[in-house]
Amino acid sequence: MAIEQAVDSERMESFFRRLEAKGMDALWRQRPGDRTGGAPFPPFRWRWSDIESFVQEATELVRPGPQAERRVVLLGNPHVPGNLGATHTLTAAVQTVLPGEIAPSHRHTAAAIRWVLRGKGTITMVDGEPCEMNPGDLVLTPGWCWHGHINQSDGPMVWMDSLDVPLVGALQAMLQEPYPDELNPATKPVGDSYARYGSGSMRPVWGSTSSPISPLLTFPWSQTERALHQLAKIDASPFDDVAFQFTNPLTGGHVLPTIGCWIQMLRPGVRTQAHRHMTSAVYQVFRGRGSTIIDGVQLDWEEGDFFALPPRAWHEHVNRSTEHEALLFSTNDLPVFEALNLYREEPYADRNGHQDVIGSYEERAG
Amino acid sequence: MAIEQAVDSERMESFFRRLEAKGMDALWRQRPGDRTGGAPFPPFRWRWSDIESFVQEATELVRPGPQAERRVVLLGNPHVPGNLGATHTLTAAVQTVLPGEIAPSHRHTAAAIRWVLRGKGTITMVDGEPCEMNPGDLVLTPGWCWHGHINQSDGPMVWMDSLDVPLVGALQAMLQEPYPDELNPATKPVGDSYARYGSGSMRPVWGSTSSPISPLLTFPWSQTERALHQLAKIDASPFDDVAFQFTNPLTGGHVLPTIGCWIQMLRPGVRTQAHRHMTSAVYQVFRGRGSTIIDGVQLDWEEGDFFALPPRAWHEHVNRSTEHEALLFSTNDLPVFEALNLYREEPYADRNGHQDVIGSYEERAG
Amino acid sequence: MAIEQAVDSERMESFFRRLEAKGMDALWRQRPGDRTGGAPFPPFRWRWSDIESFVQEATELVRPGPQAERRVVLLGNPHVPGNLGATHTLTAAVQTVLPGEIAPSHRHTAAAIRWVLRGKGTITMVDGEPCEMNPGDLVLTPGWCWHGHINQSDGPMVWMDSLDVPLVGALQAMLQEPYPDELNPATKPVGDSYARYGSGSMRPVWGSTSSPISPLLTFPWSQTERALHQLAKIDASPFDDVAFQFTNPLTGGHVLPTIGCWIQMLRPGVRTQAHRHMTSAVYQVFRGRGSTIIDGVQLDWEEGDFFALPPRAWHEHVNRSTEHEALLFSTNDLPVFEALNLYREEPYADRNGHQDVIGSYEERAG
Amino acid sequence: MAIEQAVDSERMESFFRRLEAKGMDALWRQRPGDRTGGAPFPPFRWRWSDIESFVQEATELVRPGPQAERRVVLLGNPHVPGNLGATHTLTAAVQTVLPGEIAPSHRHTAAAIRWVLRGKGTITMVDGEPCEMNPGDLVLTPGWCWHGHINQSDGPMVWMDSLDVPLVGALQAMLQEPYPDELNPATKPVGDSYARYGSGSMRPVWGSTSSPISPLLTFPWSQTERALHQLAKIDASPFDDVAFQFTNPLTGGHVLPTIGCWIQMLRPGVRTQAHRHMTSAVYQVFRGRGSTIIDGVQLDWEEGDFFALPPRAWHEHVNRSTEHEALLFSTNDLPVFEALNLYREEPYADRNGHQDVIGSYEERAG
Repeated sequence: MAIEQAVDSERMESFFRRLEAKGMDALWRQRPGDRTGGAPFPPFRWRWSDIESFVQEATELVRPGPQAERRVVLLGNPHVPGNLGATHTLTAAVQTVLPGEIAPSHRHTAAAIRWVLRGKGTITMVDGEPCEMNPGDLVLTPGWCWHGHINQSDGPMVWMDSLDVPLVGALQAMLQEPYPDELNPATKPVGDSYARYGSGSMRPVWGSTSSPISPLLTFPWSQTERALHQLAKIDASPFDDVAFQFTNPLTGGHVLPTIGCWIQMLRPGVRTQAHRHMTSAVYQVFRGRGSTIIDGVQLDWEEGDFFALPPRAWHEHVNRSTEHEALLFSTNDLPVFEALNLYREEPYADRNGHQDVIGSYEERAG
Repeated sequence: MAIEQAVDSERMESFFRRLEAKGMDALWRQRPGDRTGGAPFPPFRWRWSDIESFVQEATELVRPGPQAERRVVLLGNPHVPGNLGATHTLTAAVQTVLPGEIAPSHRHTAAAIRWVLRGKGTITMVDGEPCEMNPGDLVLTPGWCWHGHINQSDGPMVWMDSLDVPLVGALQAMLQEPYPDELNPATKPVGDSYARYGSGSMRPVWGSTSSPISPLLTFPWSQTERALHQLAKIDASPFDDVAFQFTNPLTGGHVLPTIGCWIQMLRPGVRTQAHRHMTSAVYQVFRGRGSTIIDGVQLDWEEGDFFALPPRAWHEHVNRSTEHEALLFSTNDLPVFEALNLYREEPYADRNGHQDVIGSYEERAG
Repeated sequence: MAIEQAVDSERMESFFRRLEAKGMDALWRQRPGDRTGGAPFPPFRWRWSDIESFVQEATELVRPGPQAERRVVLLGNPHVPGNLGATHTLTAAVQTVLPGEIAPSHRHTAAAIRWVLRGKGTITMVDGEPCEMNPGDLVLTPGWCWHGHINQSDGPMVWMDSLDVPLVGALQAMLQEPYPDELNPATKPVGDSYARYGSGSMRPVWGSTSSPISPLLTFPWSQTERALHQLAKIDASPFDDVAFQFTNPLTGGHVLPTIGCWIQMLRPGVRTQAHRHMTSAVYQVFRGRGSTIIDGVQLDWEEGDFFALPPRAWHEHVNRSTEHEALLFSTNDLPVFEALNLYREEPYADRNGHQDVIGSYEERAG
Repeated sequence: MAIEQAVDSERMESFFRRLEAKGMDALWRQRPGDRTGGAPFPPFRWRWSDIESFVQEATELVRPGPQAERRVVLLGNPHVPGNLGATHTLTAAVQTVLPGEIAPSHRHTAAAIRWVLRGKGTITMVDGEPCEMNPGDLVLTPGWCWHGHINQSDGPMVWMDSLDVPLVGALQAMLQEPYPDELNPATKPVGDSYARYGSGSMRPVWGSTSSPISPLLTFPWSQTERALHQLAKIDASPFDDVAFQFTNPLTGGHVLPTIGCWIQMLRPGVRTQAHRHMTSAVYQVFRGRGSTIIDGVQLDWEEGDFFALPPRAWHEHVNRSTEHEALLFSTNDLPVFEALNLYREEPYADRNGHQDVIGSYEERAG
């Protein structure tokens, strides 16, 4: 082409330099968007044995209060550049509160969920509602709600935190402020939101205006577990086996505008088919042991482990036990992708939906 | 006025006659809309003792099938002209199916709910899902779903039907067709929709697209009762005491686009405050005894009774027992008034919200 | 059957009588819903020549004010029992206001639209916005808005009114009250809502909260006509030719929750295909002449005529001119049927979508 | 505190190092969210004189096609780390196509808008619809639509591009693919979407299902300008003066799920009041000259200039002319913040809503 021949690289470089001096650039100098459609970063797994020992050590090193606003061990996927999250949109972390301790109240624009792992007798105060925490309970703290934690029991309390901090950070929308006192006071009885919205498909005839944020703040394990067993008798997904999304009872949609929460049961011996989607997720292995094959790499997990699924990675799950169920809790960014019309998914077409296993996570990581 | 003086009544009458001959009329000859805002017709009550004996007699007179598509005793408010409904929008009726009988399948554009009163072991088949029926269960049959009933037990089965037939009739939209066979076949297991949507605020991660019709077809009494007791500890409405609306889990809205369903518990000794609204309702006294004061007239009720509340009538409820709860199930036309932007309500301002009782229902009726 | 044989008709009649005495009935005594699915009543046509002479005579007989709240000639389809409407849900009427006259302000729960036929210089005051009226303009008066009319010109003003009075009446929701003064005052400039929402797909960046009622109150003819000609170059419906629904700019839906408004252009020589739907409509022939074939009966129309289409009637339109367009304005009850999930439609499958013409409207009517 | 005393910094550092080795971190080591609420980065301005000369030079250096997919000069705010955008969510750029040139078709998950600055006779092909481009026209290319540009005129064509690339990049959702041929073919006539949806508040009675993406692809300047002048007679915002949001005619919401588009007119001599909000914006000065005061710093602008407003910065606009209007086009991320429930705004309370000017943009920029 005439132009190409005429332009020597020196002139082009000069052009680029002069552009930069004015806060500009040439688009043709930039890399185009991803043309492979593959996962933008690899998965990551955190072993419970590691987490547990760090959590134990953290109880010796700091305590919640002025010194450390929260005693939280963050699970940050090092493959996500500049990110403290388990994925590019979601954090995962493990928080501990010892008997008598208070994690002081604050609020932030980021939303959070708590998925309870160990202990009982701790209260999370959410905008005046004291929410009880028992293993398997899901507790919401929507964005900009005052919230703190107090352990009134005689044993340590351990739970998973998952927040939308990387997303809110990317949106430059992360604001935070401390509560003027140690703990925001209870203005409602324990179980308030559950009494109103928790018992199936009913709502009080007064005061229930629609909201993108679930007014139901706690989803107790007893109910969740019973529902999984009932659904297991009826139907299952080829990709996720027996799986529920927690929902906002006022809309039937996600519990929070930025964080989706799932509980899934892999029945004994089940191997799901592979698929991929635009969204990412953080899994916590609540019970059982098995594997997830991600882009052909086998990642094994057992009770307590966490792992992060990157966007657009082919993935399928295997329950390694033929006797016991495996239970996976996960958070995801599906609400964001749906709201912004960016969601798509695709089943894996080959080999009846199963990937060739081409390596193990340990080999790849190590 | 010049015109008035000039126009003799003879000419006006001639004008009216000539208009009529052409399918026209003069607006000034018509009565204006209601300028009082009061109830357009009085309430009505049906005693269980009467209903029960008629239902018994009906079992001797007809049986479901070719002879009588349904063995149903209709509760028609005679104050609503030209109407077979309990109100101008809703029917109420009591249906009985004896052991071994089948009420053959059909479908109609009108939607229906069943509120179970007596018996067990009967199945309502709703578009292929066999729905169990036990006292206090609510079962939906949305418009244009094939449905029939079969009593597989050794005792009679009795339930309340409530349909939107008067509304659908006013809309000239009542279509009906018989199923080609006796009963439409089961294509799903018992409890299918409950397993998917019934267990609190969760939904399967697959296959749940939004719909104005609840995919959940059964609302079992055990869950309803537990929810009422939980809510009673937390909060209550001044007008309806402890009251839930049954909801569509996919939207948080009404279970059907034309029929709202409520369950309410009047705690021992409670007297609610009066209010009025644009909507009408049919109440069934599931348990207890008390009174409802409607436009100053006291209407007493006890277990099994039905009563119809007209639109725009001031009303308040009294539980006459200081020991036992009273439980009222009701259907209403609230979804219609909300959808058409016609809903309004108003609290009764005088005497702390309580009406003067100026007479009894018996005096007025008799 | 044993039961049938055992029951003598005398006992059954006694049963029916005793039921009636208690405000009850037996369902098996009632006729079932319509099993044909055909139109529940025949169409009706009003000739402009008749309307015009009655309207002229009405100006001699009454004037708006205490004597006749509105000088309105109602077009009531006599085939709809007990109904003053053109269909079972909608009225059609023609209103005249002479120079200097005021049709005094009032409000009612029924909603109304005005479709301007003749004259100019009249203002309809809608909740403080003075709305100009010129032929082909559509003006809304949503339910419960104060509204009145004042003719400030030197010629008579004539327009079509269409209200949801039969629907609101069937819902027992028709309330009305007079404004304390003659005309509610202007609190906004002429063209206020049009300046905010009328100019294509834009809205002010402030103050636009969603509403089921269009904030845009006037839809001027110049814009409507231009849009029809632009659409005609691009696409058309087989059933309605070039046809627009007027929309609420805040939702993209109908202008009112109970009344849909359409404008359609039948291009020269066009004969549409037949279809039927659950909804009814009232048509006003704004320009041109042609025919509508309804359930095989040919109904001819020309400029100024009105006709009412019943629900579920097969219908197709013919423009009898091969040179000029025919323009039909219509109101319909589609928003109601959509909101209540009762809408369905069906194309006519035979003879390339065309009905056999088996008679003329005149033969049938006469 | 006992713990604090016991923990020496060496042990803490060891803890941090061992955490890192396992892909973890301690939350108390991280900085908390922003507790000031201020703007996270400063504004930026690009002068038209600079842009124009670079755009001219670019026509000599490259041409669209294999060499440079697009001849685009990017306006990248250097204060946003790692970002090629004008803000953290939006790009701004200037594209030129010379007579006879084709910018070849491709598609990407990122959505784009074109705001036409100079020239005529160029077509943007959007999923088969040829969209004309004239100065002041807004043209949409929603995500994943095939699109290319062809200049069929005898003069250069220049327009502003704004995309959601930084947002989509942060969501790891940026996919792109080239069209197999040079230009995707026209499958619809010119003006197709405008004929359907462009003419005010109407839509065809067929084929208009709701969508979060505007089916209307072009918003012509003649209509936009007329609307601004009509609105100016009626009302204005204290913060934005006469300002419209372009809307999706099917929903009344934003034109795209990720990009909001505004046009605003500052009337002669107007100085707006200051406010701030969570969202960012890129402004293009379509006509006039004036200033925007951002966090107390005065940024002057004139016709052709671009400037980027960071989130949460106090800002107010001044039209420096007392005779002529100033017209600002802008894109913003408001749809994202609304969808994720993160939007908030705040008026500036002091000095009647006006900031003290504490410096000029030139001084600050150095």
